[in-house]
Order: sequence, then structure tokens, then C-alpha cells
Amino acid sequence: MTMFDVTPRAKKLREQLGKFMEAHIYPNEDKVAAEINTGDRWHHLDLIENLKDKARAEGLWNFFLPPGSDPEGQYGPGLTNLEYTGLCEMMGRVWWAPEVFNCSAPDTGNMEVLARYGTPEQQEQWLKPLLSGEIRSGFSMTEPDVASSDATNIQSSVVRDGDEYVINGRKWWTSGAGDDRCKISIFMGKTDPNAERHLQQSMILIPMDAPGVTKERMLTVFGYDDAPHGHAQMTFGDVRMPASNMLLGEGRGFEIAQGRLGPGRIHHCMRLVGQAERALELMIKRSAQRTAFGKPLALHQHTREMVAQSRMEIDQARLLTMRAAHMMDTVGNKAAKSEIAAIKVVAPNVALRVIDRAIQLYGGEGVCQDTPLALMYAQARTLRLADGPDIVHAETVAKEEYRRQGFDTRQLAGRSQAPVTT
Amino acid sequence: MTMFDVTPRAKKLREQLGKFMEAHIYPNEDKVAAEINTGDRWHHLDLIENLKDKARAEGLWNFFLPPGSDPEGQYGPGLTNLEYTGLCEMMGRVWWAPEVFNCSAPDTGNMEVLARYGTPEQQEQWLKPLLSGEIRSGFSMTEPDVASSDATNIQSSVVRDGDEYVINGRKWWTSGAGDDRCKISIFMGKTDPNAERHLQQSMILIPMDAPGVTKERMLTVFGYDDAPHGHAQMTFGDVRMPASNMLLGEGRGFEIAQGRLGPGRIHHCMRLVGQAERALELMIKRSAQRTAFGKPLALHQHTREMVAQSRMEIDQARLLTMRAAHMMDTVGNKAAKSEIAAIKVVAPNVALRVIDRAIQLYGGEGVCQDTPLALMYAQARTLRLADGPDIVHAETVAKEEYRRQGFDTRQLAGRSQAPVTT
Amino acid sequence: MTMFDVTPRAKKLREQLGKFMEAHIYPNEDKVAAEINTGDRWHHLDLIENLKDKARAEGLWNFFLPPGSDPEGQYGPGLTNLEYTGLCEMMGRVWWAPEVFNCSAPDTGNMEVLARYGTPEQQEQWLKPLLSGEIRSGFSMTEPDVASSDATNIQSSVVRDGDEYVINGRKWWTSGAGDDRCKISIFMGKTDPNAERHLQQSMILIPMDAPGVTKERMLTVFGYDDAPHGHAQMTFGDVRMPASNMLLGEGRGFEIAQGRLGPGRIHHCMRLVGQAERALELMIKRSAQRTAFGKPLALHQHTREMVAQSRMEIDQARLLTMRAAHMMDTVGNKAAKSEIAAIKVVAPNVALRVIDRAIQLYGGEGVCQDTPLALMYAQARTLRLADGPDIVHAETVAKEEYRRQGFDTRQLAGRSQAPVTT
Amino acid sequence: MTMFDVTPRAKKLREQLGKFMEAHIYPNEDKVAAEINTGDRWHHLDLIENLKDKARAEGLWNFFLPPGSDPEGQYGPGLTNLEYTGLCEMMGRVWWAPEVFNCSAPDTGNMEVLARYGTPEQQEQWLKPLLSGEIRSGFSMTEPDVASSDATNIQSSVVRDGDEYVINGRKWWTSGAGDDRCKISIFMGKTDPNAERHLQQSMILIPMDAPGVTKERMLTVFGYDDAPHGHAQMTFGDVRMPASNMLLGEGRGFEIAQGRLGPGRIHHCMRLVGQAERALELMIKRSAQRTAFGKPLALHQHTREMVAQSRMEIDQARLLTMRAAHMMDTVGNKAAKSEIAAIKVVAPNVALRVIDRAIQLYGGEGVCQDTPLALMYAQARTLRLADGPDIVHAETVAKEEYRRQGFDTRQLAGRSQAPVTT
Repeated sequence: MTMFDVTPRAKKLREQLGKFMEAHIYPNEDKVAAEINTGDRWHHLDLIENLKDKARAEGLWNFFLPPGSDPEGQYGPGLTNLEYTGLCEMMGRVWWAPEVFNCSAPDTGNMEVLARYGTPEQQEQWLKPLLSGEIRSGFSMTEPDVASSDATNIQSSVVRDGDEYVINGRKWWTSGAGDDRCKISIFMGKTDPNAERHLQQSMILIPMDAPGVTKERMLTVFGYDDAPHGHAQMTFGDVRMPASNMLLGEGRGFEIAQGRLGPGRIHHCMRLVGQAERALELMIKRSAQRTAFGKPLALHQHTREMVAQSRMEIDQARLLTMRAAHMMDTVGNKAAKSEIAAIKVVAPNVALRVIDRAIQLYGGEGVCQDTPLALMYAQARTLRLADGPDIVHAETVAKEEYRRQGFDTRQLAGRSQAPVTT
Repeated sequence: MTMFDVTPRAKKLREQLGKFMEAHIYPNEDKVAAEINTGDRWHHLDLIENLKDKARAEGLWNFFLPPGSDPEGQYGPGLTNLEYTGLCEMMGRVWWAPEVFNCSAPDTGNMEVLARYGTPEQQEQWLKPLLSGEIRSGFSMTEPDVASSDATNIQSSVVRDGDEYVINGRKWWTSGAGDDRCKISIFMGKTDPNAERHLQQSMILIPMDAPGVTKERMLTVFGYDDAPHGHAQMTFGDVRMPASNMLLGEGRGFEIAQGRLGPGRIHHCMRLVGQAERALELMIKRSAQRTAFGKPLALHQHTREMVAQSRMEIDQARLLTMRAAHMMDTVGNKAAKSEIAAIKVVAPNVALRVIDRAIQLYGGEGVCQDTPLALMYAQARTLRLADGPDIVHAETVAKEEYRRQGFDTRQLAGRSQAPVTT
Repeated sequence: MTMFDVTPRAKKLREQLGKFMEAHIYPNEDKVAAEINTGDRWHHLDLIENLKDKARAEGLWNFFLPPGSDPEGQYGPGLTNLEYTGLCEMMGRVWWAPEVFNCSAPDTGNMEVLARYGTPEQQEQWLKPLLSGEIRSGFSMTEPDVASSDATNIQSSVVRDGDEYVINGRKWWTSGAGDDRCKISIFMGKTDPNAERHLQQSMILIPMDAPGVTKERMLTVFGYDDAPHGHAQMTFGDVRMPASNMLLGEGRGFEIAQGRLGPGRIHHCMRLVGQAERALELMIKRSAQRTAFGKPLALHQHTREMVAQSRMEIDQARLLTMRAAHMMDTVGNKAAKSEIAAIKVVAPNVALRVIDRAIQLYGGEGVCQDTPLALMYAQARTLRLADGPDIVHAETVAKEEYRRQGFDTRQLAGRSQAPVTT
Repeated sequence: MTMFDVTPRAKKLREQLGKFMEAHIYPNEDKVAAEINTGDRWHHLDLIENLKDKARAEGLWNFFLPPGSDPEGQYGPGLTNLEYTGLCEMMGRVWWAPEVFNCSAPDTGNMEVLARYGTPEQQEQWLKPLLSGEIRSGFSMTEPDVASSDATNIQSSVVRDGDEYVINGRKWWTSGAGDDRCKISIFMGKTDPNAERHLQQSMILIPMDAPGVTKERMLTVFGYDDAPHGHAQMTFGDVRMPASNMLLGEGRGFEIAQGRLGPGRIHHCMRLVGQAERALELMIKRSAQRTAFGKPLALHQHTREMVAQSRMEIDQARLLTMRAAHMMDTVGNKAAKSEIAAIKVVAPNVALRVIDRAIQLYGGEGVCQDTPLALMYAQARTLRLADGPDIVHAETVAKEEYRRQGFDTRQLAGRSQAPVTT
């Protein structure tokens, strides 16, 4: 029994998913890369659409929604976060694999928001096609001109005007906006600049084709454009939305962000553990096969140290992630705040160290397009700052430690726990 | 139930033990230090003997023996390794506490050896008084003249002569030999230098007062003599022992060492997690109370970073230790070899980092006799090299990784997995 | 007096160069990026050509050749390596700046090879136009199929056939080969597979337009193609070269590589120090201007720790580099082997840490195209493996330490000091 | 001549000192340890007194005073700080060696204070016998009840009463006070609690045998008491001193501390580099001679990595120290503030890492009394917090970086640059 055999159904799904990965994902990695580099970079790939059909048919679909967000079990298998861990990790091994199973960010977070806070109309219009994998979505929170790690800095405005809201602002890192199927974005902005600090922001649904919505440009991540997914910088100029597009109610943006970001973060961590595991696998294969100075790299002690260190770090990161998932399942996302913050620091850093070692072992091949390592590194690096930089999460962990020992945390630097961008 | 949950009986014992620590251990820390510095440093302390009576009476005794080593449950409560984790960690918070509950090294390992491999006569004579806490014991394996991290280097001789064995050799780091109640030592030496490499060594019981057994001197650890426990350098000159003192049989020293060292190592790791946890606790208290540059140290961000980093590292080390314990319980010590090796690297390093941060926060007070930190550091540092240095355990982990991916590990540097000293 | 005022002329050149950077380099950074993204990515930029004219006119040209490689001072100002340090560092602050002053790799190394080992005819044909900045060049050493960190692994063949050599092989990481002005490459291959291990390889000049020379594809570094410079994977199929294209003589490839790589490595290190210095500068500016949680990032202690740590690391890396340069000047490149190896490990690692901190401080802006940081990171990361991975240089340093203490280094793992790719 | 070259006289003294170390210091290491453990631990050693005579006779004496503190060259050879670097480093290789050459802390700092700020009477009475090595001295600054890293916290009072001052306070870490020849201490306390923050403190001379001066106890560092030098906790109860014992004038304590601590810190760093160098030397010797798993430790790559890493770190720390010394010589201690702060962070950390690696290689022998390593570790560890903890010096470095780029440093956390204890 492995760590992941948390329940029989999780075990069974993991086996099934593993077979799917072997049969349909790994063998198509080169093909996907080639397709992206052919023609319009921002068009979704037929190859992936076909795989989605296969996955949906096999019931490998929408694993991500925990029972709490889908009490009637109408949207997916209703796995606990702990059960999801092993599946999410496995999908994370290939960057485009989560999409095949309709488990990719930011759609998962957006679907969770719509499932938990959406009106029946909002669910009908947007949640349904997202759950079926028909459309994709964006999340527009971070702004170029302010430190969005402190979400109170967000400046965009959402102003009520009769039955409508008028939205103005500049956003960037709207991930997924490059995809031609991206139809809707959840937008965060201020409805009331004079309200209490955590009640100023609201979230509202904005279709990507609404008048006034402009994609200024696509951002690169260490040279990668991550097409066709992509990361857009966008302007919203006098965009008018019906009041019914508001999520949950005015001033509740923070509340939604808090609920949304916990699961989003732990999913990232699960995938990062999968990436690290894959990098370790590559490291072992390479070092057993490549020879320098008269013997395979595996027989150089330095290599074995890197392998051992990686195994120790990955296992710790995984256990910490599983523990956080288990706490979310048993005591709730809010009570697991410190544990989620901890993995948000640990997992990307572990993944980066492991991937970096693999790159070093591969030499020139490790930094170029011939292995998935360089792209994995770029993506993992981003996760040390996206969804809150390490230091902000470390503050959350520290605050909780002082609280547990009975020290008044309001004293602690007067810091608010601030939600940050996807 | 997952590995993250503990059993009701473990939970209950932990609460009981916690109360005992609060009532009888922490309040006596200064007293114990003072008693050691009074009169003969190598005499056991009445204070501790009294606490032992109390603990025995409350049933807080001999937690350490897992069901596999005591199938009939005659020696203790028969806790699983996973159940023991939380108890051992708690006892580890004060360096002399494990003895109060008859759970201190090297007695625990020696008792386990006697329970598993001893003859009824050996058990009657030595196991019984050890289990009752009447006597204490030593383990004589490491030698000053060779790298004992590679146990095949051990040079002491154990030569059959009629119904006796004649033992010659120099040992050091016979921990516990300073205590006046230390009556017996398990000694490792070569019975057959010509046998296959892992069949040359044997283990034999030698009473400390046997003719030819001499304590040369006591070793210090970063200036500490660890009295009255202590670490002896010893000579064994033509010591004659009846053949019945042999453990398990000639040539089976490695086999015993392997069986003994796994539990010994994980117990060290559990205690190290406890030490780290205590250091973190001290760090938080100190930083909330001491002021520099106009505000409590806790309000300096650097302090909170140290707190957060420590929490994240401790939790990972604990989970890794629990995982190894769980594997020992479910697949056996041998199959958990890599997992035990991993924690043997991780736990001391984590403890050292956390304790070091606490020392830094305490300043001069952190390195002197006014906190337990400096001694904790010295002891934890030793555990990066005792029972095998980090690099040897890292090799074990790496070897297993290659094996799991199908690479012939005999190629891997021709290294043997070698048992090392207590 | 600063560290760099090693001589008055070095000081004066540094001031002059600094002014040029302020006037012509920094202000054109965005323009260069824009020009590259316009039209043919592999065409050289007029903007840079114009700046080259300006620099040449000001005498800011060919700083790189030390007196030893140009005894008559016909090729440049004849600066010592130590004098060059401050200039090279400054040019390194902008990735395309060294080219403006005709000091960019791999041209500098190739020019040094031609200056030291070239025949008058070879110098006339290739050195002259390189020195004038008219053409550019490549260095074809590393091969995709073998661990080129051990140069004895190199498999390409250079076979004598009458008055010609016939060259076959696959090379990659021929940096600079993307540029349309790249006219010549120095190629390394085996002339005699049966010779003593370090006498098997030779270097020969191959024009890029020679029949049989094919650029298969351009490699990316992380996601960057580094156009128009670029890194080519090339095939050489039955390429025929006149015997007069051989450099120095058959079997002397290693000797040339050794002479070439020392200066090449230290120049990389100087530039890396410049990059790190620039990243620190950006970190300070950003943190003084951007606000989070109610105060500028500079007032968060974590930021100041990063700044201080960066300053301490940069200064150490710079001093170590200057020391190595001084040793090259005074005791020669060969005797400075260990010191050069040391900086080749230290400088890229320091640069990476500093740049990484800057990225973290910039958040999303740090990983995208809006600052030079992400590209700097990608380039610096490559230098932990190009020209020999860290571990190979560490071996060189260790070997020398044992030698200095009188231990026979032939014992040391039987490792050869192996030259590696540019 | 660059900072990488040493002057002929420094070179010559270094050779002479090296010979003395070989002839008289290293061969007496065991003897000194044995003498300390015999009889009264707090009595100075005849062995060392005899060596002092020898050293004085050879002119190896009082190297530490730079020309600026002894303009007429009456007290010693008047070496620059840069010239002193190589000598101080060499003496630092054995913990008691600096005393042999009258270059040990805290005497050096105290002599410098008396030379620079003492009245002729104070110099006659205390400086002269200190310079001749007849008596020793203490420095009483740090207090047990406050964070002395912030010197404004110091609470002792020095109250004028007619022609006398009345001194009250508790001090600890008065290093050197254990020695029976310790006759005088420089004491810091508040003369005016209402003065501007940096003008409240004064320094006054207090003979150790003055009525009211009590040694409460000796502190340990890890388990070492550092006899006969030692670290005292002391009470000063209504100690009355003539007004003429005041140093420089009331309210000038900070000013003196600033002047005193720069040289004190850099001397510590020089010695730490010497300790690290010695640890590396031991590491190399041990690893060439001790065998594990079938080959010398030196042939395990992990060992060579530790050796290389140590060499690279030591050389960087040494160069940084030399640079700081050179700046003190050329621009003055005040302008070199950031550079001194930098080495105060770097040198102890480098020494600790190198010594720690050596300990790991020695195994059990590394932590006990059989090598100098464990004691070296304990002493070096203390220097990460004595004379200011790392983070305080990092703040100094950061502050200067911001200043250099034109940012108003008064904004920076409102931190004062605070002198701290010896």
C-alpha cells in the first residue's frame, strides 16, 4: 500500500489515470509541441480536444471539485482533497495534461467559485460549459501598476450605474486568455473605495468579447509564451455589465478570493510535486545512460547525492501537501490556512531545486527544447511569486505560530492576510 | 483512517505523558543540571530515579517495543512505531526525559536485541532488569582507529577458545557507560576474518565489570561530558566470556546490527523532532518578550521568517518520520530501509537548523548554560554522524531510487549497505 | 579609490565606457528588443552596427586581448586581465553590449586562438575581419550525443585525405551561428582515435558556407532563442577543408582548448558579476518605489536582507574574479587553473541567486519581458553547465588542494582535467 | 601594486611567524590542553608565558595597532590593517596563539582604546602593562537582561558624585575575566538617560579588584568554559571610581564603541579565516588517510566537493576581509563601515560551514576533544552573535546600498547603527 491508497476509489482512479497517461499523454508530448509551433499559436489543439473526449468517456473528468463545493455530486466524482492529491500530482507531470481531464487552472478555481457562489443563471450560462470542457476562462485580478501581493492595492473600479456596473482597469497575468475558447473572465475591482479595507473589492463576470475588453499583449515567462493558453495583459475600458453578473454581492471579493485561492494553491502544489517527481525520474534515467570520465553519471557520487536529496525533498513536500489536503477535508479551508500557506512556500521551492538538478545533469540538453525541464522550471519559478510570494505565505505561517502560543497577533506588524492573484 | 490520524490509545497516552512532562519534567530541568554538577558526576540521580517510580506507577513505561518484538505483549503496551512517534517526540523535548520512562538509548536498542534474539537465560539475566529500569547498558561497536561508518572496517576480535570467547579490541562512543548503573554492554567484533564480508562480525554480551574491561576515558561532545550518561572510550584486553554470551550465533553481528539500527535511528529522529519543536517554542516566547531597536523581536520580519521556516521544516520532518514509522509497521523494517535512511538525514539537519535559529535569537544566552539550546545543538550535531553519516544514508536512498527504476544497483559503486555504530 | 582603479588607464577607460553605456546602451535596450522582434530574427541589427562605429571611433574596442596574446600591441590596447575586469563587468550589464565594443563571446575566444596559434594566412583571412567587427564566428565543440563535459568523449572525425581534411560530425550549441554575419567556425574533432587520450583531438577552421555544413535548427535557452546571435545545432557531412585550415597542428586540439577556455571562462564571470550588480541595482530601485502592506518594499526587512546578502555575495565573487585575473597576469593561465575553476563555479551561482532575488521582488514583472531579469537568469543558468558543469570545476579545485598538501593526485579518481565546450 | 600583493615587510613577518607557529605553537597544543585541565582552571599557564617571552624577544609582538592609533610608532611595528591580515589569520589557527604575540581579544581592542582616547595617566597605568603582556583586561558592555545588539538598551548606570562616579549594573560575557592576570575592565553605562540617544552612554575604567565588583559565575559556550580566559557574569554594586577613570568624556561611550568595534570585528574575521583554513587542512589530511568502503575518503567525490566548496568560500571570505582592511587603511574605519559589517557576517558563517564539514569527515573524532574542531566551531558560532548578530550587520550593509543609490536612509526602518558587545 502506497501513500496514495488513501481510499480504494482513489487507488482505482489513480491506476486508471496512470494507464491513460502512459497510453495517451506521454506519447503525444512531442506532437503537442509541434502542433503549437504550427500555424496560429493561439488556437486550441485538436489533438488535445480528442484526448478530452477520450478522458471524458472514461470518466476521468472533473476530479477537482470536493464534496463541499458540490454537495449533490452533480458535477464530478466528488473526491476529497486528499483523494485528489495523487491524481492531481500525476496529471501535473505533463504541463498540458490537466486540461485533458478538465482539471486545469484557472478553470478549476473559476468553476469552484461558480459552483459555490454562482446564481443558477450564472451556473447555467458559464459553469455548465466549463464543466463540459466546451469553453475556457480567465481570472483577472493582478494589476501591473501595484504590488498585487497585497490585494488591497488593487485599483480597478467597478461602479454601479443603474442596472449595470461600469468597469475600468488594467489587468495582467490573466492566464488562459490566449486560448480562442476563453470566453469568460472573473474580474476583481473596487466597488467601494471607502468601505472597510476588506470589503472594498468585488468580483464580477465579464465575457471576453464584451465591448471595452482588449487584450493588449501576451506576456512571456522566461521566454515562453505558453501558447495557446498564454498570459494576457488586458484593458477594461468602460466595460458595462448587467448587475446580475456580480458574484455573491458587492464587497465580497475578498471573501471569494479567500475561498478560491486555497484550493487553487494546493492544486498547484500537487502538480509541482508531480513535476519534481518527473524531473527525478529523468535524472535517474539520464545518469544511468550517459557516461563521463569513464563511467555512467550514476556512478559519480555527486549524482547520487542529487538523487537522494531530491527524493527526500519530494517526499516531504508531498506529505506536507497531503496533510494540508487532509486538513482541508477535515477542519475546513479556513482552519487549514497556515498549512496551505506552508505548502505554497515549500512545493515550488522543492520543485525548483529538483528540476534544477535535473537540468544540471542534462547539461545543454536540459536548458533547451529537447526535455520538458526548462519549461517546468519557468513555470515552477513563477509559482514562487504567483498567488502570493513566498514571504507573504511565510508571514501567514508565522502569525499562526504566535497565535498558537497565545501571543496577540494584532501586534504582529499590523499585517493583513491578503489574497493575491491566480 | 490515514497516517495523519492517530489511534485513540496513542492520543490518550500522549495526553497523559504531556501532563507528566508539565508536572514533573520541565519543572525539574534546573534541578537535574544542578545535581549533575554536584559531587560525583558519574553517579545516577536520585531525582530521576524517583521520577521513574512515578512514571512506572502511571503505566508510562517501555513504550518503545513494537508488537513484532514482543508478540505476547509481556514487556510493554505494544505500541506500533507510528503510535510511538508522538510519545517519543514528546519525551525528546528534554534530554534526560526518555530515561524517566525507560525509553532511552542505547537501552531501548539493547532491550530490543535481547527481546528478539536473546536466549531465555540472556533475557532473564539482562533483559528483565533493563525492562524494569534497574540497570543500564552500553553498545560497543565504533572503533577509534577505523572509519566505522563502514562497519566492515571493525577490527576487534572475538576468538573462540573452548567454551569461551576471548575478546580484544578498542571501542569508543560506548554511550551510557559513564553511568554507575551501566552493567552490561553488547560488543561487536570479528569471529571470522575470512568469512564472507557480512558474516565476519558477531555480537556478544560483556558485563562492564568483567576482567579486562577498562574505561580509558570519557569523551566530550562540543565540551559536554553528558554526565552521568557519558561516552566512554574502552579497551577490552583478553576478556573471556562464556560461549553462552554470544548473541544469535557467530557471524550474525551484521544481521543484528541491521535489525537494531533501524528502530534506533527512527527513535533518534522522533526525539530530534521534539527538540526542534521545543526550540521553536522557545524562539517564539523569546521573540515576543525581548525588545530591540524599539520593538519586540517578533515584530522584526527576520524573526518571523525564521519562525515560519522552522515550522515548515519541522512539519515535513515529522511527517517523513511518521511515514517511515508507518512503513516499518506495515511492510517491515527491511522494506522501509530507504525511508529510515531518509529521515536519518533529514531529522538531524532540520533540528540543527531550527535550534541554530533559536540560538541566534537568544544571542549570548543561547550558547551558554541558561537555555537547553546549546546542549541540544551538540547532541543533534552528533546525530549527523553517529549511526552513519549523512552521506552513507543518502547512498542508501539513492540506491533504492535506481533500483525502483530498474537499474542494476550492483553497478552502483559496489557499495554495501553498512550498519554503523549506535 | 575603488577596487577597479587598478591602474590609471583602466580607471580612465572605465569612466569613458561608463559614459558610453549611459549615453548609448541603456537608452537603447527597448529599441534593440523591438528590432529583434521585427522581420528576420537572424539578421544583425543596424542599431548595433551604428553603435559599433561610435565605440570604435572612441577607442572603446578590443579590450579583451591581454599583452601575452598580442605582444606587439597591434590588435588593441593590451590591457591586463585585471585591468579588463572592470570593463568587462560593465559591458556585461546589458547582454548585447559586449558586441558593441567587439568584446563578445565566442568571437573573443576565437580571436585569441587565431592571435596566438594562427598562421599569418589564417590571421589575414579571419582574424583581421573579426578584429574589425566585420564578421562574426562560431565555436563547434559540444556534441549532442555525448557528455561533452568530458572532452575526450567528442566523436566528430577530422580525417586527412591528401591535401585536405574530411570532416564529419554533429555539433550543437554553436553559439553565434544564428547571426547572418557569422562566417567562420572553429571545429574540434578527432584526427587520431588511437593517439594518447589528450592528443586525439584537433581544431580546424571551417567557413560557415562550406559545402556539407548545415544548420539543423536553433536551440532555445529556457524559452529564448537569443536571436540574432542564437545557438545552432549543426551537421558537418563530408566537409572538405584544405590542410592549411588546421590550427597549430594535428592532435593539439586539447592544448588550444585549454588556452582558449581559461580566458573565455573568466570573461563570462566578469560579465556575470556585472549582471548581478545590475540586478541588485534594479532590486533597490524597485523596492524603494513599490509599496505593499502599507510601506515601501524597502521597509520590509526581508527586502533589506536580500539586498545585503546580494551585496556580500557580489563583492566576494568580484574579488575572486579579480584575484584570478591577477594570477593569470602574474603567474600565467596554467598556474591559475584552480583559481579560474573556482570563479567558474562561484560567479554563475552568485549571479543566479541575486537575479532570482530581484525576480522575486518584481513579482510577475520579473519573469516577463518587461525587465532584463528573466533573460539574465536564463543566460546565467546556462553558465553553470556551459564551459564545464560546476562539479567538473569543483574537481579541479579539489585536486589542486590535495596537491598543495602533498597528496598524489593521480590517485584522485583518475580524473583528467578536461576542457569543455564554449 | 594591488591589494592582492602584500608588502615585503608583511611577507617577511609572516614567514617568521609561520616558523614560530611550527616550532612552538602546534607542538604545544596538547600540552596546553593538559595544563588547563590540571589544578586551578583559572590560573594562567606558565607554558604560554614562556612562549610570550620568546615571541617578544623575536619581535613578534603587538602587531595589531595600525599607524593611525600609534602615530609615533612607539607601541609596535605599526602595520597597516592589510599587512596585519596575513599575520592575524595565521595566529588564529590555534585559539590560544594570539595571546603569545600579545594580539588577543579583548586586550587588543582595549589597548587601541587606551592608545587613542586614554589620558597620559591612564596610558601609564594600564596601557603600558597591557602592551608588555604583563596584565590582561576585560570589556564589560553586554547585559543579561536586555538585547544588547541594540546598545541603546544598555541599562547600567554611571552616576557622577563629586569627584567620583558611582557604578551599578549587571554585565555578562566579560570575556577574559577568568584569567587571574585580568586587572582592568572597560565598562559601559549610562551617564545621562535624558541625553540624545547616542550620547547617553559613557565608558569608564574599573579595576577588577575594586570594591563592589563581583564575578557571579563563569558562562559556558556550548560545553566549554574557555578557561583560563573565560566569560564572566559580573555585578557592579555601588562601585566608586575617581572621575579621572572616565574615558574621553561623559556621553562619548558610543563614539568609543564605534571606534573600538570596527578593528575588533575585523580581527575576529581574520582569525576565523585562519580557523577555516586550518579546518580545511585537517579535512584534506584526514581524507587522504582514512579509508571507508574500500578507498580513501579523498576518493569519494562527496569529500572532494566539500574540499572544493571550502576552498572557494575561504578564499572569498579572505579577499573580502583584505578588502575591508584595505579600505580601513585608505578611507578610514567610518567610511569602511559597510565593508566591515559585511565580513562580520561572512567570515563566521564561512568558518562554521568549513569547520562543520571537517567535523563531518572526522565523525565521532570531530566532535570530541581529540581535534580542535569542536572548540573552533563553538567559538565561531558565538561570533555570529557576539559583536552584533548577523541581521544587525546585514542591516548596515543594506542601508549603505540604498544610500549609494540615493534613497533617504532615514526612512529605512528608523534603525540606528548600534554598537554592540565585544
